[in-house]
Amino acid sequence: MAMKVALLGCGAVGSEVVRLVDEQRSELATRAGTALEIAGVAVRRPERARGLPIDPALFTTDAMELATRPDVDIVVEVIGGIEPARSLTLAAIKAGKSVVTANKALLAEDGEAIHSAARAAGVDVYYEASVAGAIPLLRPLRDSLAGDRVQAVLGIVNGTTNYILDRMDSLGAGFAESLEEAQSLGYAEADPTADVEGFDAAAKAAILARLAFHTEVSAADVHREGITEVTAGDIASARDMGCVVKLLAICQRSADGSVGVRVHPAMLPREHPLANVNGAYNAVFVEAESAGRLMFYGAGAGGTPTASAVLGDIVAVSRNRLAEAQVVDSGGNGETRRVHPMGETVTRYHVALDVADRPGVLARVADVFAGNEVSIQNVRQVGHGEDAQLVIVTHMAPDAALGRTVEQLRALDMVRSVASVMRVEAFNDQ
Amino acid sequence: MAMKVALLGCGAVGSEVVRLVDEQRSELATRAGTALEIAGVAVRRPERARGLPIDPALFTTDAMELATRPDVDIVVEVIGGIEPARSLTLAAIKAGKSVVTANKALLAEDGEAIHSAARAAGVDVYYEASVAGAIPLLRPLRDSLAGDRVQAVLGIVNGTTNYILDRMDSLGAGFAESLEEAQSLGYAEADPTADVEGFDAAAKAAILARLAFHTEVSAADVHREGITEVTAGDIASARDMGCVVKLLAICQRSADGSVGVRVHPAMLPREHPLANVNGAYNAVFVEAESAGRLMFYGAGAGGTPTASAVLGDIVAVSRNRLAEAQVVDSGGNGETRRVHPMGETVTRYHVALDVADRPGVLARVADVFAGNEVSIQNVRQVGHGEDAQLVIVTHMAPDAALGRTVEQLRALDMVRSVASVMRVEAFNDQ
Repeated sequence: MAMKVALLGCGAVGSEVVRLVDEQRSELATRAGTALEIAGVAVRRPERARGLPIDPALFTTDAMELATRPDVDIVVEVIGGIEPARSLTLAAIKAGKSVVTANKALLAEDGEAIHSAARAAGVDVYYEASVAGAIPLLRPLRDSLAGDRVQAVLGIVNGTTNYILDRMDSLGAGFAESLEEAQSLGYAEADPTADVEGFDAAAKAAILARLAFHTEVSAADVHREGITEVTAGDIASARDMGCVVKLLAICQRSADGSVGVRVHPAMLPREHPLANVNGAYNAVFVEAESAGRLMFYGAGAGGTPTASAVLGDIVAVSRNRLAEAQVVDSGGNGETRRVHPMGETVTRYHVALDVADRPGVLARVADVFAGNEVSIQNVRQVGHGEDAQLVIVTHMAPDAALGRTVEQLRALDMVRSVASVMRVEAFNDQ
Repeated sequence: MAMKVALLGCGAVGSEVVRLVDEQRSELATRAGTALEIAGVAVRRPERARGLPIDPALFTTDAMELATRPDVDIVVEVIGGIEPARSLTLAAIKAGKSVVTANKALLAEDGEAIHSAARAAGVDVYYEASVAGAIPLLRPLRDSLAGDRVQAVLGIVNGTTNYILDRMDSLGAGFAESLEEAQSLGYAEADPTADVEGFDAAAKAAILARLAFHTEVSAADVHREGITEVTAGDIASARDMGCVVKLLAICQRSADGSVGVRVHPAMLPREHPLANVNGAYNAVFVEAESAGRLMFYGAGAGGTPTASAVLGDIVAVSRNRLAEAQVVDSGGNGETRRVHPMGETVTRYHVALDVADRPGVLARVADVFAGNEVSIQNVRQVGHGEDAQLVIVTHMAPDAALGRTVEQLRALDMVRSVASVMRVEAFNDQ
């Protein structure tokens, strides 16, 4: 008996899923243990989907009916966004369907509710496609590292911002100009907010943290800064330090067992493997107690790569349904860890100050750092007279202390302006 | 009721597994769905294992009795080698135990027999640790890419040879000297045959090919060349071309659906991500039809990283046993593909010839290539008079034709010697 798959949404990812289910029919049947059959496709405007190689009889506008239809085994949600995706997903789970979704926003906002519902209903919810497209990342975190303790996850998980920062670095261009270019090439959307303000990366960071630390983390727990304030000056400062600027999603376990989850632009040494991840590619570093450092790299987006991840999940949930298995799922259950605020996160700052070039300035500036118990790793003066700049790299310190230090520096007479402030990651770790 | 784990072997990996099961007791219980308990440890010489933090009562010298003991659920085989590992593994499977193993040699030689036995007995056989240590690689290939078509796998899967080639590259040292250094640092064994002759990498290539292509591939199907013949001259030649020499494990699907599996040293452009994988690290590129190019990177060996992979598998098989699930396993079953011989593999050669520096040499040499229908991408003369060398890079051609070409070049009067022959991978793909 075929495994019946209902598709909610039929955009770039959904249409590729339909095409691949057809094209790889026999391989998928062998791998899933039974044939896969598209039982229906819910779309808002069937007339738009007419060009697709899909039997028109499969289209419906009633997504809820399809998601709960008795003959459906697996519901694939590729609509995106919170509603109606949430109601549809929860209804499908309640109706005993296994769910495969690529919806990072929903999982980041309501992961716990969705996992609980799935546990209660004894069904699977798989979502490999929600983070880093085709890169097999969630399954390794959830399964392969189930016998390890993940210490940190550090990743480039948003291709749009990675492309923009790349262009700023290689052309010396500003943010606005690079965004425009990305938009004209289709790498950024007309409304780029979700990408450039870090919302997309923050949702992914929440999902990664949940799986890495087996605890509840939602989008609201993620400290989020986008790249809209990154200037050509920041990029030039980074270059002077042998660094590049990347938008990083970082999940870290602290010594006290709490976890920190954040998304912000950061300077990264050029020799770091993540520094060379360009364009629309994604890459994620995972550091685990026993496994050491692992890196995963690949296409972070795109209809076909994302469809590959969706199909891998469809095969997995099919196998589980066939086996009538309610396999213990470690998606976020099990441990309860405090998610600490950004202020407690231990980090390191790069600060460039436009200063008056006169004796005593460095002493005064150093005083401010010392007063906040932030120690300085490195300071150098660049330029003279009107152009004098102090460039400071701190040692690791609580982010709140670093933020306070910058506020106090801003208020100093002899500091004309704070030219650049940016966190530095993976830099001279000792 | 606890899941009872029997350990066969207690060396670097086994003792770490025992330590971690103890140290992570509560996390593992949550993730596996039930407590894990070491039920026994089979060792040949219990007196040697006395220093380990293991209840001495758990030791036994009767591995077969332990592997088939009625109270045991999961058998972890970390003895290595073919016998007695094979008999023990098959007996454990027959007795209904799930098996976790790190034994690449056994899986490469007898993978089909082991998978068949497991299917018949309805138990799991997991072996993430057998290839690339802690890097989650087999599970992504088997599960995450189950809805995709893998085209090629290209990897550095042996840390010892990678270290030796690295030293040869950075110091200009010869093979023997670099091997000695690796031995003195503990990176190479006293008998380095398995590593330097490519047996270790070939076993891993067979396992990767089986999972990537869902077909039966055994060690005997793998074309294998080690690094013992790599000379300082080869490395220098590679450098002149902007390449490094790496021992690569390559699994490729051909246009006709057959697959080729091979291990040999090859030149790789310095800008290729695998070119920068140094020392004992492993990295594997996977190219899939929909997912595109993926890379996995991490520690390839070592007791603790390997134990992390073993524990991940223990958790996975525990979950399956708890769920009483016989989840369809795609480890090599399903598809039947011809494994073609090396001669049919399409590849590209770099050839350096010491030649007489006189008119007509190039024409004569080019004739030999043309006679074998091998076209030349690039040829340049290096040096003059007695030192004249022709350096040729071919286009892609069947390996047999390339081999024949080199044989015929060797026989030419005007070719004093063939200074270097090496395959070139990922070079100017167009």
